[in-house]
Amino acid sequence: MNQLFFTLDICHFSDDGHSLIVLDQTLLPNQEHFIELHTAIEVADAIRHLCVRGAPLIGVAAAMGLVVSLRNKPDAIMGSSASFFNAFLETKNIIGSARPTAVNLSWALNRMERSLKEHQELSPSELLTLLHHESLQIKEEDQATCTAIGNYGKELLRDGMGVLTHCNAGHLATSRYGTALAPIYSATEEGKHLHVYADETRPLLQGARLTAYELSRSGIDTTLICDNMAASLMAQGHIQIVLVGCDRVAANGDTANKIGTLGVAIMAHHYGIPFYVCGPMSSFDPHCPSGKSINIEERHGDEIRSLWYQQPMAPEGVTNYNPAFDITPIELISGFVTELGIINPRTLHDVLSNRTEYYPHP
Amino acid sequence: MNQLFFTLDICHFSDDGHSLIVLDQTLLPNQEHFIELHTAIEVADAIRHLCVRGAPLIGVAAAMGLVVSLRNKPDAIMGSSASFFNAFLETKNIIGSARPTAVNLSWALNRMERSLKEHQELSPSELLTLLHHESLQIKEEDQATCTAIGNYGKELLRDGMGVLTHCNAGHLATSRYGTALAPIYSATEEGKHLHVYADETRPLLQGARLTAYELSRSGIDTTLICDNMAASLMAQGHIQIVLVGCDRVAANGDTANKIGTLGVAIMAHHYGIPFYVCGPMSSFDPHCPSGKSINIEERHGDEIRSLWYQQPMAPEGVTNYNPAFDITPIELISGFVTELGIINPRTLHDVLSNRTEYYPHP
Repeated sequence: MNQLFFTLDICHFSDDGHSLIVLDQTLLPNQEHFIELHTAIEVADAIRHLCVRGAPLIGVAAAMGLVVSLRNKPDAIMGSSASFFNAFLETKNIIGSARPTAVNLSWALNRMERSLKEHQELSPSELLTLLHHESLQIKEEDQATCTAIGNYGKELLRDGMGVLTHCNAGHLATSRYGTALAPIYSATEEGKHLHVYADETRPLLQGARLTAYELSRSGIDTTLICDNMAASLMAQGHIQIVLVGCDRVAANGDTANKIGTLGVAIMAHHYGIPFYVCGPMSSFDPHCPSGKSINIEERHGDEIRSLWYQQPMAPEGVTNYNPAFDITPIELISGFVTELGIINPRTLHDVLSNRTEYYPHP
Repeated sequence: MNQLFFTLDICHFSDDGHSLIVLDQTLLPNQEHFIELHTAIEVADAIRHLCVRGAPLIGVAAAMGLVVSLRNKPDAIMGSSASFFNAFLETKNIIGSARPTAVNLSWALNRMERSLKEHQELSPSELLTLLHHESLQIKEEDQATCTAIGNYGKELLRDGMGVLTHCNAGHLATSRYGTALAPIYSATEEGKHLHVYADETRPLLQGARLTAYELSRSGIDTTLICDNMAASLMAQGHIQIVLVGCDRVAANGDTANKIGTLGVAIMAHHYGIPFYVCGPMSSFDPHCPSGKSINIEERHGDEIRSLWYQQPMAPEGVTNYNPAFDITPIELISGFVTELGIINPRTLHDVLSNRTEYYPHP
């Protein structure tokens, strides 16, 4: 493999534009297999079944999948602008229903619709070209955001550092580089050698299946650990910095991220290790005052008891507690690495106040 | 099931004394199946293949298995005392080789040999009776130790408390009650209602397979969590006390226990939750000055990457770090629950100084 994995395009159009080609993440780490999607139903299924996952990547794939689906509907392109618009809405509804709770999915599809409505004078084939460019614009903006996060974040990384990360906020969750992993890739491209420790991240094992995969596939020195081994590594002085992603940052800086992030933050704090949250400004929610306002999704206990296993590893009927996220309070966070720069927790309030135009009230 | 599981005898002689009947722990949590052992090779295999595990229980099963093996050798019993002694040594060597690093195994077998040597004047059948009683004595002492740990420890538990435990230091690791779980069983027998949270304890999942099993099987209100969920529970105020076992306590109180214990201790400290280590005085090693002197066993990475799974969950060739234990420093420990009472970390030195007769220098 000559190409570094973090430069691999895991979501792109085929040469003729009639297929969306995506890496099937459900087959990782055992197979690196791309699939071709042609219709709205195929795109929706790929998102629903986690072939494509990670909030930013879902948005990109949904927008590009919409274009492919329309291009493969000759009736829509050959008919009137009104019938094209109807076909658009039908396609949008199918793809949009794949994971109704993923914000990026509806955000990307709504942006496509807005673009369409602003150019109602165009012909169907011109509208299709417009949507094609809009979807690539969404992808490019995601790449630019991740690149900026990487460029700011790499300044935190010195040659030889041990870096701990949790879950997967990497190349596989975005259209390039990722958020928490972007600084690692950027520093590596500059020739710095880092030793990255990846928490396996129970119960869904995104750290083992995805992060360990994409880092080692990119030639980065990577060690996979169980979540409960991080403290021991810190005690032995092997970790100099922690980088994690975020699902939602409240106005006061409290951060919701994958379950287990809070424990990592407490341990890092105990050992005086810097703990940085990496994410786009779109993850900051100034309308959410603090972590107390963030609802935590609880998932089915079978993810702990039996998922992935040859046979159940806990007795049937035992109660499980399976929250998907936890809240790390601002006191435990050293800073936020964003596309605008590294935000100090003390100045977060000012940054958010000056940029309210970014956050339409729901 | 009318009998509470924690009163179930998981290692006992058959009525005719020709079998050792043990619960096959490799089949838990999916089957509760007892197997009969008759020969030294069968006993050794049961220990080697983890049908019987937990240091105290291994010692008990080895001693009792020795007796059964000899009883099933008519030549040994019908011959001279010298030939009985030879048969004893042969049997002891077979069983003793099952897990050469388990201290309790060699300790129990050596105690049996000492007892034999002190009564060389007896006939083979009298010697067999002597060994029979000695093995039951070892078992009774283990039960008495666990019962005392339970009785002292239960005073820490109030009705309605949330208790977190890690790994399995329970009934299944001893001949009754366990160490960290003994206070929970004792308090439950007194009618206190506790809500116990069991860390699943990656990678070997002793918390899921064994602790969640034995607690729920005993009618105790038990919730199984992934190791990375404990911090979230603490933050929400669901945990009032942490009870864990120990593999070795250094003279200064630093404690080696199952990997992940250190992280739990740091999180408990962060939230001001009492963190108690439960174990017999035989786990205290006054010849080991501090945790720095304790070697940590590293195990094969496949335990993280592929064990239990339908297919590997991390890429082949990825580096793993898989320490079996970690060291919790004395500063994070609220106290030690032992058969002598609850030892305050500040008085640990005095307690150990006064009881050096317990610890022959290696």
